Amino acid sequence: MSLLIVGSIALDTVKTPVEEHADLLGGSASYAALAASYFSPVRLVGVVGSDFPQAELDFWKSRKVDLEGVQRADGKTFRWSGEYSWDLNTRATRSTDLNVFETFQPTLPESYRQTDFVLLANIAPALQSHVLDQAERPRFIVADTMNLWIETARKDLDALLPRVDLLILNDSEAREMTEETSLIKAGRRIQKMGPRYVAIKKGEHGALLFGEKDEFFSCGAYPLEDIHDPTGAGDTFAGGMAGFLAGTVKTVRFADLRKAMIYGSVLASFCVEAFSLERLRHLTNEEIASRYEMFKLMSQFEVLA
Amino acid sequence: MSLLIVGSIALDTVKTPVEEHADLLGGSASYAALAASYFSPVRLVGVVGSDFPQAELDFWKSRKVDLEGVQRADGKTFRWSGEYSWDLNTRATRSTDLNVFETFQPTLPESYRQTDFVLLANIAPALQSHVLDQAERPRFIVADTMNLWIETARKDLDALLPRVDLLILNDSEAREMTEETSLIKAGRRIQKMGPRYVAIKKGEHGALLFGEKDEFFSCGAYPLEDIHDPTGAGDTFAGGMAGFLAGTVKTVRFADLRKAMIYGSVLASFCVEAFSLERLRHLTNEEIASRYEMFKLMSQFEVLA
Repeated sequence: MSLLIVGSIALDTVKTPVEEHADLLGGSASYAALAASYFSPVRLVGVVGSDFPQAELDFWKSRKVDLEGVQRADGKTFRWSGEYSWDLNTRATRSTDLNVFETFQPTLPESYRQTDFVLLANIAPALQSHVLDQAERPRFIVADTMNLWIETARKDLDALLPRVDLLILNDSEAREMTEETSLIKAGRRIQKMGPRYVAIKKGEHGALLFGEKDEFFSCGAYPLEDIHDPTGAGDTFAGGMAGFLAGTVKTVRFADLRKAMIYGSVLASFCVEAFSLERLRHLTNEEIASRYEMFKLMSQFEVLA
Repeated sequence: MSLLIVGSIALDTVKTPVEEHADLLGGSASYAALAASYFSPVRLVGVVGSDFPQAELDFWKSRKVDLEGVQRADGKTFRWSGEYSWDLNTRATRSTDLNVFETFQPTLPESYRQTDFVLLANIAPALQSHVLDQAERPRFIVADTMNLWIETARKDLDALLPRVDLLILNDSEAREMTEETSLIKAGRRIQKMGPRYVAIKKGEHGALLFGEKDEFFSCGAYPLEDIHDPTGAGDTFAGGMAGFLAGTVKTVRFADLRKAMIYGSVLASFCVEAFSLERLRHLTNEEIASRYEMFKLMSQFEVLA
């Protein structure tokens, strides 16, 4: 089944202690769509400016990403620039130019309205809700968010949460949102705000998944020795998770979410191996399958019945 | 088989934001011995002062902890006092009174010399080496260490490492020891310093295990909502790991170390549920087994063949 994805499409300039690259493809929807495309057809919603490279649109088409919902506006594409600290663990935003994104109102084409799986990639929660208003009874809704919206659009976020099946956020965001230091308490608290499932991303420490009653899942991160660019890892994780669900599952159960989280982690581990989406562009199904096997090997401590 | 454990025996005064308790049993060997005693007989090496409670010695005996190697010296028992921050993630040492520990030279009784499994719990690496000098060809040697020794006794520590089969340390210590920010690189680097296996403890994020070639294992932490006293969690982890190996395994393979790490994590999760060793004193095998099953449930994402 198809996955509807809405989010940002950007041209990023990223500086790490070792490298700097300007105007490479970025944005939450770009990462999520490419990751998801390895598992299911994607229906993309977003906006690009008149300067957006045709080659990128052609590439998406080659990956079976439907672009009917991508608006082309007069003006420049959304641009973001950031710089990472020496250990790549923290980053400072150098500039954000919203450009055509400033007045973006996501509109679902008629052909998108009946899509069973929806990923609200990281954008303002009001826009995420606006997309849901236009969707016709989707089966499973995944939403990603970030500290910016927790701090500046909390009301919109709180209104969105009861409409969401799975909320994805990172550890510091979960703590900020709940004022709980324990991630276990934070995850359970966020569930009470609406989402049936909550996934907390912990970067190099893996991820946690909270389900109904005692359902709980914890996975490590793929053991990478070298990280080149952490940008988009979270968006890729969300895209891999939602793409796997859309492409594989009819009725989502906790067991499916466990696997989905592993696939999200696998895709995110590839993402950070190169700048921008460069590594994700050239993935093979065999590479994904082999890293998935590695996750099994690294987390198994008994031959299970 | 028996496990020989050497380390500190102390009376601790610990303050958390909620509670404070004075002169409760503490020290690396105390935690490690009690944890290990759930899996194998223990031969304890350490020193206590004339003020040390007879009740604690009687309790150890009831747990099949051999005390022939515990010296009783004139003077006061080693005392440590610490205070935890509001989130229990950092602690400050308020005082350290070495007392009888200051002149402690561990001596193995004749009956201890042939012990197949040895745990060098956290004490000065020179003392750890001194114990190994007296042991007759043990099969498997586990050592725990801490930042203090990395900073003040690096030469002694470096001399110890090639004699050790498994080194256990926490994430910040692994980074400090190797000057690597990546824990994956740090683990592999420490193996090159001598130990065939390295376990890196990450507190609430679980633990990593590095073996030969591509052998790698990652486990999460048990999802505890409330922690009462983190003191001794690392010592308990080491004791649980080494105790499981001594009690269960003849020739240690990576598969055994995976399970041992889960048992170490299980014991550590009980440890932090109460002050001092209070929770560890009253454990049942059923409680341990049921938490072990929970680790399976929380890390399994496929029915494995």
